Amino acid sequence: MKNTFGNNVSVTLFGESHGASVGAVVDGLPAGVKVNEDFISHQLDLRRPFGKISTSRQEADKFEILSGVFNGKTTGTPICIAIPNENTQSKDYSKTYGKARPGHADYTAFCKYNGCEDYRGGGHFSGRITAGLVAAGAIAIDLLAEKGIKIGTHIAKCAGVEDSSFADLENDINLLSDKMFAVLSDEKGEEMIKNIEKASEKGDSVGGVLETVVKGLPVGIGEPWFDSVESILSHALFSIPAVKGVEFGAGFTCADMLGSQMNDSFFLEDNKIITKTNNNGGINGGITNGMPVIFRCAVKPTPSISKGQETVDFINNENTVLCVKGRHDPCIVHRARVVVDSVTALVLCDLLSQKFGTDWLGE
Amino acid sequence: MKNTFGNNVSVTLFGESHGASVGAVVDGLPAGVKVNEDFISHQLDLRRPFGKISTSRQEADKFEILSGVFNGKTTGTPICIAIPNENTQSKDYSKTYGKARPGHADYTAFCKYNGCEDYRGGGHFSGRITAGLVAAGAIAIDLLAEKGIKIGTHIAKCAGVEDSSFADLENDINLLSDKMFAVLSDEKGEEMIKNIEKASEKGDSVGGVLETVVKGLPVGIGEPWFDSVESILSHALFSIPAVKGVEFGAGFTCADMLGSQMNDSFFLEDNKIITKTNNNGGINGGITNGMPVIFRCAVKPTPSISKGQETVDFINNENTVLCVKGRHDPCIVHRARVVVDSVTALVLCDLLSQKFGTDWLGE
Amino acid sequence: MKNTFGNNVSVTLFGESHGASVGAVVDGLPAGVKVNEDFISHQLDLRRPFGKISTSRQEADKFEILSGVFNGKTTGTPICIAIPNENTQSKDYSKTYGKARPGHADYTAFCKYNGCEDYRGGGHFSGRITAGLVAAGAIAIDLLAEKGIKIGTHIAKCAGVEDSSFADLENDINLLSDKMFAVLSDEKGEEMIKNIEKASEKGDSVGGVLETVVKGLPVGIGEPWFDSVESILSHALFSIPAVKGVEFGAGFTCADMLGSQMNDSFFLEDNKIITKTNNNGGINGGITNGMPVIFRCAVKPTPSISKGQETVDFINNENTVLCVKGRHDPCIVHRARVVVDSVTALVLCDLLSQKFGTDWLGE
Amino acid sequence: MKNTFGNNVSVTLFGESHGASVGAVVDGLPAGVKVNEDFISHQLDLRRPFGKISTSRQEADKFEILSGVFNGKTTGTPICIAIPNENTQSKDYSKTYGKARPGHADYTAFCKYNGCEDYRGGGHFSGRITAGLVAAGAIAIDLLAEKGIKIGTHIAKCAGVEDSSFADLENDINLLSDKMFAVLSDEKGEEMIKNIEKASEKGDSVGGVLETVVKGLPVGIGEPWFDSVESILSHALFSIPAVKGVEFGAGFTCADMLGSQMNDSFFLEDNKIITKTNNNGGINGGITNGMPVIFRCAVKPTPSISKGQETVDFINNENTVLCVKGRHDPCIVHRARVVVDSVTALVLCDLLSQKFGTDWLGE
Repeated sequence: MKNTFGNNVSVTLFGESHGASVGAVVDGLPAGVKVNEDFISHQLDLRRPFGKISTSRQEADKFEILSGVFNGKTTGTPICIAIPNENTQSKDYSKTYGKARPGHADYTAFCKYNGCEDYRGGGHFSGRITAGLVAAGAIAIDLLAEKGIKIGTHIAKCAGVEDSSFADLENDINLLSDKMFAVLSDEKGEEMIKNIEKASEKGDSVGGVLETVVKGLPVGIGEPWFDSVESILSHALFSIPAVKGVEFGAGFTCADMLGSQMNDSFFLEDNKIITKTNNNGGINGGITNGMPVIFRCAVKPTPSISKGQETVDFINNENTVLCVKGRHDPCIVHRARVVVDSVTALVLCDLLSQKFGTDWLGE
Repeated sequence: MKNTFGNNVSVTLFGESHGASVGAVVDGLPAGVKVNEDFISHQLDLRRPFGKISTSRQEADKFEILSGVFNGKTTGTPICIAIPNENTQSKDYSKTYGKARPGHADYTAFCKYNGCEDYRGGGHFSGRITAGLVAAGAIAIDLLAEKGIKIGTHIAKCAGVEDSSFADLENDINLLSDKMFAVLSDEKGEEMIKNIEKASEKGDSVGGVLETVVKGLPVGIGEPWFDSVESILSHALFSIPAVKGVEFGAGFTCADMLGSQMNDSFFLEDNKIITKTNNNGGINGGITNGMPVIFRCAVKPTPSISKGQETVDFINNENTVLCVKGRHDPCIVHRARVVVDSVTALVLCDLLSQKFGTDWLGE
Repeated sequence: MKNTFGNNVSVTLFGESHGASVGAVVDGLPAGVKVNEDFISHQLDLRRPFGKISTSRQEADKFEILSGVFNGKTTGTPICIAIPNENTQSKDYSKTYGKARPGHADYTAFCKYNGCEDYRGGGHFSGRITAGLVAAGAIAIDLLAEKGIKIGTHIAKCAGVEDSSFADLENDINLLSDKMFAVLSDEKGEEMIKNIEKASEKGDSVGGVLETVVKGLPVGIGEPWFDSVESILSHALFSIPAVKGVEFGAGFTCADMLGSQMNDSFFLEDNKIITKTNNNGGINGGITNGMPVIFRCAVKPTPSISKGQETVDFINNENTVLCVKGRHDPCIVHRARVVVDSVTALVLCDLLSQKFGTDWLGE
Repeated sequence: MKNTFGNNVSVTLFGESHGASVGAVVDGLPAGVKVNEDFISHQLDLRRPFGKISTSRQEADKFEILSGVFNGKTTGTPICIAIPNENTQSKDYSKTYGKARPGHADYTAFCKYNGCEDYRGGGHFSGRITAGLVAAGAIAIDLLAEKGIKIGTHIAKCAGVEDSSFADLENDINLLSDKMFAVLSDEKGEEMIKNIEKASEKGDSVGGVLETVVKGLPVGIGEPWFDSVESILSHALFSIPAVKGVEFGAGFTCADMLGSQMNDSFFLEDNKIITKTNNNGGINGGITNGMPVIFRCAVKPTPSISKGQETVDFINNENTVLCVKGRHDPCIVHRARVVVDSVTALVLCDLLSQKFGTDWLGE
């Protein structure tokens, strides 16, 4: 279904960038899960524009829980979270309607919806819709942490700079969770930010790669074929605007490896079966093997740039040049990080409940 | 659902490597589509072992259409295609049960199914299950071709050798469709095969990258967020065993591009809106923009290798060394090619029918 | 999925009786459908308490369209409609928590949600949640009417009184659409109301039967087996609280008929194939045959009655007697009518879009 | 999805009456469930024609398990069961193609599938397709019995004769399980059979009502709104050809009851909460309350009768008279019984696994 994903635990998205509200309905979470509104705010803050390297559209992202929470806990029935839009400057967009922003959904939305799309600020295709995902995901992240399942994402690469690698997973995940610009090496982070600012000054934008690790998943999660962990995660991850690639474990580098290099040897350590390497990203045959699940998402450079761009005016049917004014992010990699964490948490709740049941999730 | 995928057009997989049959049920294809059994055989042949670079397990892959076809045409009701297993040498496997083959699902299946899994030849996790997908996909590929939608996949990289790039799409797709080893440059193909043979001689295996192009899709296919073309395609592609990465258009290289490089400028040519570059792989906001859809899958080296490997015997709970005997493929990249084409075709039928209806598909 | 229904056109419900808002997200409706807010209000009015025969909880049911509508038309993306709760007197309920109201979900919700359910006013199990369905359904009803597909429901039986039968379908449907108490015979309606009032005076409640007719559906809608028109409609209808039976055409009376009586003979009239009788309710093999689709829903008497009732206090684990105070409806048959129309419209949009595509729905 | 039903545990149907095979794929059953092939045969026997009151088309219904069973137990992966068609006399049908059999899907299938439907013996709309459901259901029935959940269905009414009511549930269910003509009172059963024979002699057919009871379900199964036990069960039950009505507990008689009569008072007995009456059929708010789940299905008289019937020849577009030759059942109520048990078992496995997980099902 278009804007709904998940079997036992599902999430439904709604909203447009300049409409009344954006939000999400999460269904299937067990009853009795503590809902920490401060943590939801914290997560929404991680998604918000940050410093000079973000759009100047600043919103408090005050959310309203319309249903599904009672006495500070989930009721077991659908949780609807709405985040009213504020500070919308819709006039910026109406003037340029018809001039397709390259890399954006303006032209495809126009064709798909016969000119009835809400074009203001990208409408339903705006990254702003991910705020609903983040609010919903916050509850899932909290729930999983109670089970000892922790998710961490860092900016593995951005603006041509590579971050350090994960070392001490537990510690790294904890450190990342509070960072607005989620790098393992703050030094590398500063380099990235400098490069983003440089691009921004030239009216341009940059992309990057997010790397995510999930620690503490039991063996046996995921299903063969169409509900493989890779299938379900990639489905959700590619829903995030700007993600153009997803890879697990060694990912694309496996193309250059030999089987004897790629295969992760099993061995017994303290009577537990683990693997020496983790080129398969914690997944064999679509099913978790108890090692950390690792994947990377390629995030393209923000398509909104102020540089002049050749394009087509699809209303007047003519070639034209577009200078996108409005307020833009020269980079959204760091803001996409918490969205990746959020969809990962929601998807894992769904997969876990297939095996163990919804009741187990709530215990 | 675990082994079923699709909304309006769905496919359900069944079977184990050494059971009675593998196969698929395709539901939702319109009535009246010609079912070309020769083409199904042709496609199954493309998936079969090939020359020295494949397993010596040779099966005719004779399929039986159990339902859904009448007078040579689809009836509009479920098509069940079964492919009986022959030439199974199950004894090869029972001896080594418990010794987890690294990179395989032996250990995860054991944990997930409490030791009740059909372990022979990988059971339900065997690449052999893709034969059902290929048979089902053949009908979908034929149907789409009637609509002017053509799919072609080449081995972009294998065993360290890169193929040429797509040039004349129409022609390239036609040429690829009959090749057992689908390269655009036969010279490069021979190099790849040599390298595969070398790895094979050392008891090792190699991986590669498959690149797919879909030509002729109308603008406006796909849905926002969870039914984006990228989401749905990646979901299906990651179901294929050995796929560890999927990227669209520029994919992971977008991380190093500027927005001004990545954005595909629109322009009018002969009164049609097209883009100058195709870094977004024919998809904006999850929806087709009329340009060819382009994506790449990373295929890991076959995990079955005859080289000795350290591993764990999960029955006797001890570290051990495994020398996989059996019959193996030193490379499955070329065999996976037709599987990629098949799932792509099935997924596109589903997405097309959301917009245009099942009836339209059959016109 | 628990609170989501539909494939191409889906609806997701949320809310509790005494929470912030109830509402629905409708996804998959085509772009460009006029959204008549007055008609939504009109439909919500039909669901509201009516005269002496309803609860004294009176709410304006002011709805807010949070997304999916732009310039008075659908955008093609999810429509979220929220209806804030007002006039809630939650204290009525907290006192009696633990004393399971017979016929209600108090006890089952307590068991299912481990005491974390929002118990106020029935929480998520309250009939109030149907307000979201009605608001969403209003858009679907409007859309179908544009296509010549009209839905009408009357109170076939209530409080021991039977209404007249449908005669002139077109006219009857039009007349019913504005009635707060939807009977074909106003005389019979007055009798019903008198009987409801009598029951109410005794602290009791009554049930009834709703009969629905859908006119103008094309031949060939619905799918074999699990997506039969009966399957899909009954699934949605049984979601409405208090519905305990659903039958199509002759329904349960077919048990006493001979095949020669039950079979609907086909004949040609003005070159159109129709049937002489309509015992199959316009459906053969799960698929519409062009005749009006006819079905009936049994609606049980409202379980909330003020008469003393024996029950169990599941908190204190003891037998007890319960006198439900609060504000109750002695009958909800007339209020359920518009809910039946609404889910019928939503379900038909989904089935129509499977065959013809979402685009067709919007033409 | 058209021919697939269920979330965690799903079933996919395929086949035509005169094609190669009919069958089903069941997915999501846990690993390690004993598969009793004798019991599958036993259940298929219950569905087979019986004595003079059935068609003379006699088939052994030999089934083949194509996948998903290993060493006599489920593997946890899809179970495909195929039942080859034998003894088909297709010529009976081809002669009359175009003459729509009243009450059948001939005309609707022709319209839906543009004349490409397999019309022989009703094709995919034939009751024969239920053989797949029965074979699949047998495994589910067995699995549930291990958990203490038992399903029994009797012919509550047939050919104008009413059976006795359930008395000692455990005992009644056991007795019914082996009866070819499932009545509680053998005397009443004989009367029914006489009446069926009478109708048969006149070239006519009769209908009836099946009543089902499920004993041993835990409290809290089912989900609010769209996954209510009533919604899910009715969805599956209305998929069975000839079912035109489904009611739970008091069903349609609730329309004539007062709330004080309909409400099932709770009381504590031996420290267990039960209800005095069971008018709600063991379901409150869509969720099981621990009492037996009770429902009834109206089964219409077999539409195939040998009496002459007026109809339309939709090929030649003219009114005509049809005398259906072929081999017919003057009654299918008794054969439908085991189909009802089967879909009930499959659906309950799905609902149970939502709450408790797939693992629990297999413990």
